[in-house]
Amino acid sequence: MTYKAPLKDMLFVMNELAGLSTVNTLPGCEDATADTVEAVLEENAKFCANVVAPLNHSSDKEPSFWHDGQVTTSKGFKDAFKGFAEAGWQGVQHPTDFGGQGLPKLVATPCIEMLNASSISFALVALLSDGAIEALLTAGSEEQKATYLEPLVSGKWTGTMNLTEPQAGSDLAAVRTRAVPQGDGTYKVFGTKIFITYGEHDLTENIVHLVLARTPDAPAGVKGISLFIVPKFLVNADGSLGERNDAHCVSIEHKLGIKASPTAVLQFGDHGGAIGTLVGEENRGLEYMFIMMNAARFGVGLQGIGLADRAYQQAVAFAKDRVQSRDLAGSAGPVSIIHHPDVRRMLMSMRSQVEAARALAYVGAGISDVAHHHEDAAVRASNLAVYEYLVPIIKGWSTEMSQDVTRDGVQVHGGMGFIEETGAAQHYRDAKILTIYEGTTAIQANDLVGRKTVRDGGAVAKSIIGQVRETEALLAAMDGADFKAIHRALVEGSVALEAVVEYVAANMKTDIKGVFSGSVLYLKLAGIVLGGWVMARAALVAQAKIDGGEGDAGFYKAKIATARFFADHILTQASGLRTAIVEGSAGVLALTEDQF
Amino acid sequence: MTYKAPLKDMLFVMNELAGLSTVNTLPGCEDATADTVEAVLEENAKFCANVVAPLNHSSDKEPSFWHDGQVTTSKGFKDAFKGFAEAGWQGVQHPTDFGGQGLPKLVATPCIEMLNASSISFALVALLSDGAIEALLTAGSEEQKATYLEPLVSGKWTGTMNLTEPQAGSDLAAVRTRAVPQGDGTYKVFGTKIFITYGEHDLTENIVHLVLARTPDAPAGVKGISLFIVPKFLVNADGSLGERNDAHCVSIEHKLGIKASPTAVLQFGDHGGAIGTLVGEENRGLEYMFIMMNAARFGVGLQGIGLADRAYQQAVAFAKDRVQSRDLAGSAGPVSIIHHPDVRRMLMSMRSQVEAARALAYVGAGISDVAHHHEDAAVRASNLAVYEYLVPIIKGWSTEMSQDVTRDGVQVHGGMGFIEETGAAQHYRDAKILTIYEGTTAIQANDLVGRKTVRDGGAVAKSIIGQVRETEALLAAMDGADFKAIHRALVEGSVALEAVVEYVAANMKTDIKGVFSGSVLYLKLAGIVLGGWVMARAALVAQAKIDGGEGDAGFYKAKIATARFFADHILTQASGLRTAIVEGSAGVLALTEDQF
Repeated sequence: MTYKAPLKDMLFVMNELAGLSTVNTLPGCEDATADTVEAVLEENAKFCANVVAPLNHSSDKEPSFWHDGQVTTSKGFKDAFKGFAEAGWQGVQHPTDFGGQGLPKLVATPCIEMLNASSISFALVALLSDGAIEALLTAGSEEQKATYLEPLVSGKWTGTMNLTEPQAGSDLAAVRTRAVPQGDGTYKVFGTKIFITYGEHDLTENIVHLVLARTPDAPAGVKGISLFIVPKFLVNADGSLGERNDAHCVSIEHKLGIKASPTAVLQFGDHGGAIGTLVGEENRGLEYMFIMMNAARFGVGLQGIGLADRAYQQAVAFAKDRVQSRDLAGSAGPVSIIHHPDVRRMLMSMRSQVEAARALAYVGAGISDVAHHHEDAAVRASNLAVYEYLVPIIKGWSTEMSQDVTRDGVQVHGGMGFIEETGAAQHYRDAKILTIYEGTTAIQANDLVGRKTVRDGGAVAKSIIGQVRETEALLAAMDGADFKAIHRALVEGSVALEAVVEYVAANMKTDIKGVFSGSVLYLKLAGIVLGGWVMARAALVAQAKIDGGEGDAGFYKAKIATARFFADHILTQASGLRTAIVEGSAGVLALTEDQF
Repeated sequence: MTYKAPLKDMLFVMNELAGLSTVNTLPGCEDATADTVEAVLEENAKFCANVVAPLNHSSDKEPSFWHDGQVTTSKGFKDAFKGFAEAGWQGVQHPTDFGGQGLPKLVATPCIEMLNASSISFALVALLSDGAIEALLTAGSEEQKATYLEPLVSGKWTGTMNLTEPQAGSDLAAVRTRAVPQGDGTYKVFGTKIFITYGEHDLTENIVHLVLARTPDAPAGVKGISLFIVPKFLVNADGSLGERNDAHCVSIEHKLGIKASPTAVLQFGDHGGAIGTLVGEENRGLEYMFIMMNAARFGVGLQGIGLADRAYQQAVAFAKDRVQSRDLAGSAGPVSIIHHPDVRRMLMSMRSQVEAARALAYVGAGISDVAHHHEDAAVRASNLAVYEYLVPIIKGWSTEMSQDVTRDGVQVHGGMGFIEETGAAQHYRDAKILTIYEGTTAIQANDLVGRKTVRDGGAVAKSIIGQVRETEALLAAMDGADFKAIHRALVEGSVALEAVVEYVAANMKTDIKGVFSGSVLYLKLAGIVLGGWVMARAALVAQAKIDGGEGDAGFYKAKIATARFFADHILTQASGLRTAIVEGSAGVLALTEDQF
């Protein structure tokens, strides 16, 4: 149950697909030279493998627990977080002004993947802090930035996102938490928030809660929500800790997975009111929260990729070790089960989907860097549009994929997979949260359809499909069965995706429920086709390296074979998905409520 | 978290698709009149819903536990099993000669589904007893039958299957447990067996272990395995219990799911030898065990169907109750989430797959009854061949389906689904064993390919496809968009299945690893196409009923809509699967072991 970071694949994707050599020419990104990046990744990989990964299983067996308002995290977490903070890992992508390393998102991305592969439960605290930092950087006052950013970036404190309430779930229009202005620039906050990741813990001396609440005269619905900073301990002018604030953890949840991550119910204001300060302007809270959410959604996509890779690595190790039954092609005695074709099929399915989702996410990170750092505003804007289109796909598809992969991971282990001691079952349990939090897959899909596709009549989607077509032209010129199969499947996929984009754009006004009946399937189709596209690009690069006699031929050959597998086994789902989307809404919507 | 048996659908399938009116004309099956069957199912449904279903969640929270060799089952299990036995439910399908009800398999099938929907953990003890009864009926001596069958059929005692050993897993050739003849007709058995479901418990005073072991001069491999009865307590000539046998439970497993079902490690012979008697002839143990296995495999398929239906019912109840966000088509305030298209899509996906798998399993049960009771040996033989083809599909596809469905079940619940208190997560955990025990999906698929398809060059498979084509002809003559869509999808599916059957039959000798690379996908394809076929038949019946003004039009309309959904969303996966099977083995097999 060890974890070895796939540095070779990560660096391949960064250099060959995600444009590191372009990113590190952008203003502010110059430090991210290929050598520096490789050194950063190697150090991060060591920390993750040696310090965090060994805690994953033990912390599942002995989760964080609540007693009298305090949460004690799993054994080893406190030291590990101290190490994480001291090494500066919280600050990889954050500004040097506040103590960060100021590296591009493309470089932070593999670090986040590695941390999550090591332990999702542990990595969550860092993910939430990242979100809080992003929100404060965008909307915080100078004073708020001065007070909170350095401790958050350094890992001295951590951050949380407080959206959900018992009656509200994903529906933020229903938020009821109140914030009453005190006339001194502060507010008193009253309400209950649930599902607050690391809402209470013992890793740091303070916790910076970012809380959605309504001011007294706020309009109803999502347009009346404001964002507040409500620290666990108030902060004195000199940065030292003041009084304990009236924000208390009244319980934590008993969950299917990520058991070491405390999921808190937080009570604000039961003892007179929790002191908070407004972030940005009143009634713009949702907008600021989306900054956190979008950063977090991309991060949750990486959680899926990291977790799936961990499950894959564990399944491979088991399959090489476990000896059972003869080889189908004939052997004197039993062989390791990696010789059995269906075990191999499962491993290739796991591998190919992990590699495809990784490549797509890293490509997205590179585009995000261009969108944020390029000197030309038009280039920034066009890249931002592409990045925004990709975020729900990266989040939704990578996390759904992680559930397929961790399920296969248990299956490879056979009966042993069902025994908790083995550890494969934990991945299966942990994965289930990923398609739910930070917006369910359906919410990602609504975003993909409603905002990212319909807002421009599918123009961005089609521009990406145009890039897929360019890759298809390159594939068509290649020799050999592998490239022929990849080409055929990618063409079938891009045709299906284009048809669906046109269907969505054309029918949104006249048949909104019909279109949304297929929204999750559209997200899945987009993930498969774009995943197939980046794998195809990877195969082209790999063949060029082999032809040029460069590098590790075994690695490149495996990449081509993995792309071929993805084309034959995953991309071939595209046409069926198109039919289900375009023809399938009648069946979705036919029943009356009482027929269920 | 209640469970309501879907009696209306069960009776519809039995009467309209699975041929109850033919089955109850078979010799020995005459008691199964439509009225009797309905009464039996209603009584069983009451028992399951009132007595067993309420234990499912509580028994997961407080599982069976081991102390000093004894296993205490979850609260309520002992009384529930007493009620189960006293009502005669263990004996539904077993011969009246031994106290059973002697009803056809087609009637036992919904009873088994209901019991499993109520609690898989509880139902397992009955499932294992069924297997032991089948084996003794087939291969037991008159004395063994006289001693063991009545107590097993009445539920006074229970039975177990002891195959797996720590080093052996699914590979029975590696069984090491020894059985040494004592010269008095008994044997002393020595060895360790793992993963023994209900290998120890407190529900009954005795447990009848059926154990695979090797006699001293037995040949190596599976041809040297014999089957022994090793009771927990020896049985005196008058049927009373004698001495405690040397078969002891040394621990039980800590598992992902089915936690209330004790999974035992049994140690035979550590204190001088466990006394056993040979079942049938030496070295034919595997053959007898397969009798148990085949009965059990069909039963595990029903576990998948029952569990999936439970998850579906729970998701529907939550979706009707949970109010969140406005209706897409416009509403003043938030609506219950069943109004949201993607929730509806998930519910229809769950529903349609449950109904399809149920219909296929019940059709299989009806065929099994003909295969066992028909007067004409040729009819028996041809039906047996079809039934044997269907068993791995019913087991493999229904259980894989249950993992898709329980995953959607959690997803419908959103964040609440991840909290164990809700109960949806338990189904997701419980489902994972079903594709593993009684032969993994790959083992089912190997059976489907190696024995059930290749042994006759695909003849049985093609005869079934011929029946699908007959249904297609009927569909082609129907009016309306629903039937048009169902027809198109079924034709696409049957074409794909036929192509795959031909590929398998043609390539087995020259490319065995290539063929087995796609074996699980072939099983899935067969499940989808045959599931689509029985749903199409159901839709045709439903339309005829509507046209004839018979019965509940709402039920029949829902059946047509559900068949339409299955066609558009599930059957449309068929072509992609064909490509993955026929073209996809290169990608499966390309990597060397060290490239993983």
